[in-house]
Amino acid sequence: MTDPASPRPVIILVEPQLAENIGMTARAMGNFGLDALRLVAPKGGWPMKGVRETASSATHVLDRARIYPTVAEAVADLHYVLATTARERGQMKRVFGPDEALAEAAGRLARAERVGILFGRERVGLSNDEVSLADAIVTFPVDPEHASLNLAQSVLLVAYEWRRAAGRAVLPFTGAMRSSPAPREALISLFESLEAELDAAGYYPPEKRGGMIRNMRDMFHRMAMTEQDVRTFRGALRALARRPPEEG
Amino acid sequence: MTDPASPRPVIILVEPQLAENIGMTARAMGNFGLDALRLVAPKGGWPMKGVRETASSATHVLDRARIYPTVAEAVADLHYVLATTARERGQMKRVFGPDEALAEAAGRLARAERVGILFGRERVGLSNDEVSLADAIVTFPVDPEHASLNLAQSVLLVAYEWRRAAGRAVLPFTGAMRSSPAPREALISLFESLEAELDAAGYYPPEKRGGMIRNMRDMFHRMAMTEQDVRTFRGALRALARRPPEEG
Repeated sequence: MTDPASPRPVIILVEPQLAENIGMTARAMGNFGLDALRLVAPKGGWPMKGVRETASSATHVLDRARIYPTVAEAVADLHYVLATTARERGQMKRVFGPDEALAEAAGRLARAERVGILFGRERVGLSNDEVSLADAIVTFPVDPEHASLNLAQSVLLVAYEWRRAAGRAVLPFTGAMRSSPAPREALISLFESLEAELDAAGYYPPEKRGGMIRNMRDMFHRMAMTEQDVRTFRGALRALARRPPEEG
Repeated sequence: MTDPASPRPVIILVEPQLAENIGMTARAMGNFGLDALRLVAPKGGWPMKGVRETASSATHVLDRARIYPTVAEAVADLHYVLATTARERGQMKRVFGPDEALAEAAGRLARAERVGILFGRERVGLSNDEVSLADAIVTFPVDPEHASLNLAQSVLLVAYEWRRAAGRAVLPFTGAMRSSPAPREALISLFESLEAELDAAGYYPPEKRGGMIRNMRDMFHRMAMTEQDVRTFRGALRALARRPPEEG
């Protein structure tokens, strides 16, 4: 059951067969902050041998997993149920992509509804009767020629979209610059030093000098240099200018 | 190399170790329409034993994979390179989530740039020098307490976001109703039949009849019934009304 203080959807695997897929499901859930796993009649019994090896740090998900004999029992206490399927079922239900589905789920979770998402067996998915227990269908925008998503991969996409829909998709770090952007006067001073060195080196054909300077200043502007970048470049320029002339 | 007629990013795995991860990477790429895979110095050599077993139908990705001795050689012909990393590197690069990264990549691909995305070794990721070969960093909005994404899982998220950014994220089927919505007169006629049967059965206390009818009509309106739904419900109602009275 989800903690009402921080509502999260329940992931329900129906008759999963491979220990590795259950472990990888737990890992994928842990990656995006899900922890409520229900297993309906896992094929190898429970606990299943080899399941922890692929769970990485998400063994807490496995430790808290609940086992149910049927799908109906696994969804009994839920208010809203989504069924994942790759195939059309001819059932008159809404069909969502994972982004829309988890936006709907996040809205319901925020209103204190308990939400669960059904994932079928590795080879044959959910039966039509099991899909029929759901309010709506989730399917993935796959290439129709290579439509077979691995079980843990589909759980990953759902967990990822839940985290986004719940507004928790914060990156672990940002590209914030550790040095302030250089003020224009520092850039102009750098440009003038560089251009003076290039003049001394005879780099510019006089009739092209103005255009070449503008082009090179544009290159530097595209760098969006920080104060530290300007200092670094000034040092490199000084080192080059000090270089003894080549022999010959 | 990507086909210029239909530009797609190149996925580059650096020193991948497990055959299973390479196979699952190919499968994830195939799911979302990617097919250009480059491997830098795969640990077990190439072709690697056991790699096809986990690729599902995406063996074409493995068959076309190119092998390079170094990252620099693997990115040599590309115009824009992204490096995936879970850790901050202290490098002054832009840091994207997968959605922003693939939006940027899709824009460049549409302008005929060749784009590649680097994924590091299973345990230690990319070296700082390898990250330094990239234009920008991609990181994932994971739970910091369970931040370790499986290699093929991170490729899946990138492939999924590419398909969305490229405007190709079409669901394989929709929830389009196979029957038209019922017109109001069909609904009102159904309501009147139902209410007549309930009147005959003595269901309504007379003083509450008006409110109860409005509540029940609301329930039916929430169903958004199709013409077929109305026919189905009418049949069920007729069957109930024909039922012989219980004895006693």
